[in-house]
Amino acid sequence: MSMQKKKAIRLECPMPRLDFDTITLGHGSGGLLTNRLLDKLVFELLGNKQLNTRHDGATLQLDGPIAFTTDSFVVSPIFFPGGNIGELAINGTINDLAMCGAQPHSLSLSLILEEGLPITELWEVLQAIQRACQQADVHIVTGDTKVVERGKGDKIFINTTGIGRIHPQARIGTQYIEAGDAIIVSGQVATHGIAIMSLREGLEFETTIESDTRPLHEPVSQLLDTFGADIHLLRDPTRGGLATVLNEVARDSGWGIALQQSAIPLDEQVEGACEMLGLDPLYVANEGIFVAFAKKDIAQQAVELLRTHPYTAHAAVIGQVVEAHAKQVVLRSRIGGTRVVNMLTGEQLPRIC
Amino acid sequence: MSMQKKKAIRLECPMPRLDFDTITLGHGSGGLLTNRLLDKLVFELLGNKQLNTRHDGATLQLDGPIAFTTDSFVVSPIFFPGGNIGELAINGTINDLAMCGAQPHSLSLSLILEEGLPITELWEVLQAIQRACQQADVHIVTGDTKVVERGKGDKIFINTTGIGRIHPQARIGTQYIEAGDAIIVSGQVATHGIAIMSLREGLEFETTIESDTRPLHEPVSQLLDTFGADIHLLRDPTRGGLATVLNEVARDSGWGIALQQSAIPLDEQVEGACEMLGLDPLYVANEGIFVAFAKKDIAQQAVELLRTHPYTAHAAVIGQVVEAHAKQVVLRSRIGGTRVVNMLTGEQLPRIC
Repeated sequence: MSMQKKKAIRLECPMPRLDFDTITLGHGSGGLLTNRLLDKLVFELLGNKQLNTRHDGATLQLDGPIAFTTDSFVVSPIFFPGGNIGELAINGTINDLAMCGAQPHSLSLSLILEEGLPITELWEVLQAIQRACQQADVHIVTGDTKVVERGKGDKIFINTTGIGRIHPQARIGTQYIEAGDAIIVSGQVATHGIAIMSLREGLEFETTIESDTRPLHEPVSQLLDTFGADIHLLRDPTRGGLATVLNEVARDSGWGIALQQSAIPLDEQVEGACEMLGLDPLYVANEGIFVAFAKKDIAQQAVELLRTHPYTAHAAVIGQVVEAHAKQVVLRSRIGGTRVVNMLTGEQLPRIC
Repeated sequence: MSMQKKKAIRLECPMPRLDFDTITLGHGSGGLLTNRLLDKLVFELLGNKQLNTRHDGATLQLDGPIAFTTDSFVVSPIFFPGGNIGELAINGTINDLAMCGAQPHSLSLSLILEEGLPITELWEVLQAIQRACQQADVHIVTGDTKVVERGKGDKIFINTTGIGRIHPQARIGTQYIEAGDAIIVSGQVATHGIAIMSLREGLEFETTIESDTRPLHEPVSQLLDTFGADIHLLRDPTRGGLATVLNEVARDSGWGIALQQSAIPLDEQVEGACEMLGLDPLYVANEGIFVAFAKKDIAQQAVELLRTHPYTAHAAVIGQVVEAHAKQVVLRSRIGGTRVVNMLTGEQLPRIC
């Protein structure tokens, strides 16, 4: 997927003429108003053969093993530098499928709208959903729309659930991890969380940090095509950041994890914002990167392959799986000291995705 | 499924000892608190081989065509006569699968919790989810948990998305409907909506009306086993009620629909409550019934078969597909007059499911 193609489909669609400006409870009735809302907005942008049957569900024909994953998105604010809740929801579920070694096949889309939501905002979110689906060549095949009273929701919550075909060479799971495995991160950490936090804290005019929301199934597919079962685990470090996901892997696999701080890719502006906000980038949420546990022998080749794709251009080996300090993540700092890195405790960044 | 079995699994599980009484934002952090919440509550009740992998998604092996359906549940209040939002969410998605002619295989479960939700209430909802899954022999294989600030949600919203195997004999779709088809309803109408409305309006002590939430895949499976492609369409008349779903079918198929009011099964207490509340039972939401469009010749046999199952004991033929009044639903009243029945306009019963 070239960056040109991404730009080419970012054309705005003119909003249809409607006899309502905001979401009302009637749009959740299941009756005439729900049907009008769906016809004029959702089907207009997202319609396809499956969705247009308007049945209670979609019928799919898939062969071989499939991946199945769900996420609800409650990010606040719904518009942020680099995207909005719409593409976040599509890319997020595509990426969860990719972490199972699967290529996205079909998605469901379920909206919980707050009474009073301006239709212009809903339209913008639906356009982002359309673009993200086009970019990843995935279809929304079934959906649902509910409306809650003002003050009982927050503009828009989105659930996307995805089905994907698992790559025939994929053997992904904590049970495949071995001592010596290289730990690769596919890009710079902490970007999404800091983009959102900068906006909340009024720093967005001082930086050009944008969310890294993007689909990762293509580089993952290339990895699996080339290295197959030598890729032992894939995980995306979203909420809780890199530190939390690595702790989960250490706990679930029983191995120790050794990290080199100097190897972890981190944008200078993001690093500066983390310092200003008092946040450790290891705990800040990501959307557009993944962590791969790969057989040591192929790790450098895997990094080189990832660097050829624009979405994983900053890939790097950041550590290794070790027999020492079982179930613990230990970081060697830039100045040579070591410290145990625990899972996120408390709530650093509420509603980051 | 005998009623005995249903009762047998309705044992209460004692709530685990926890060091928190209510949901906090930290439970949505993705870090330690999220992990504790999941360990102590969700995995305790719903754990299984797939869910326990704690990966970003589940891996499934299904052969043949599958159905895929999603629903978000925002019912208010979350506890109501006859059930709570937990079993409603499981049964609702099972029923959407059943309407595609599919038997439930796997579900995803995504929770949006409001800060301050008492853990006892969450436990009760999760227990209902467990019971409903056990009753239908379906597993939750993947999930997600988010927390929103107090006043940005309403206790608990649940998304369930389901995958099911489509019955090999199923040929379900508006394109299969023919003039002369009998329209069967599987049980009494308006029960769920009136159970919720009675509670909201303070009538619950005057009636014994309970929600009809229940899984319908078994009677549907029996119908398809016996009558196969002679069952032309299945739909569950949830939001918007029987009138709305029949209008959708008339619109999408292009046929007319003729209903006999006297044939529509309606509980006496529900009818009385509808009169008190000024509601037309044809527009009131249902959860535990479905509408089948069946070839005329087998309709009476189909009704007799349905009446042998406790969940569809009140099944009846309520009308037929006609060439006259294309795309319209016309009701012949008890006293012999006829009137056009339109789709629900406005919002009769917000947040009924």
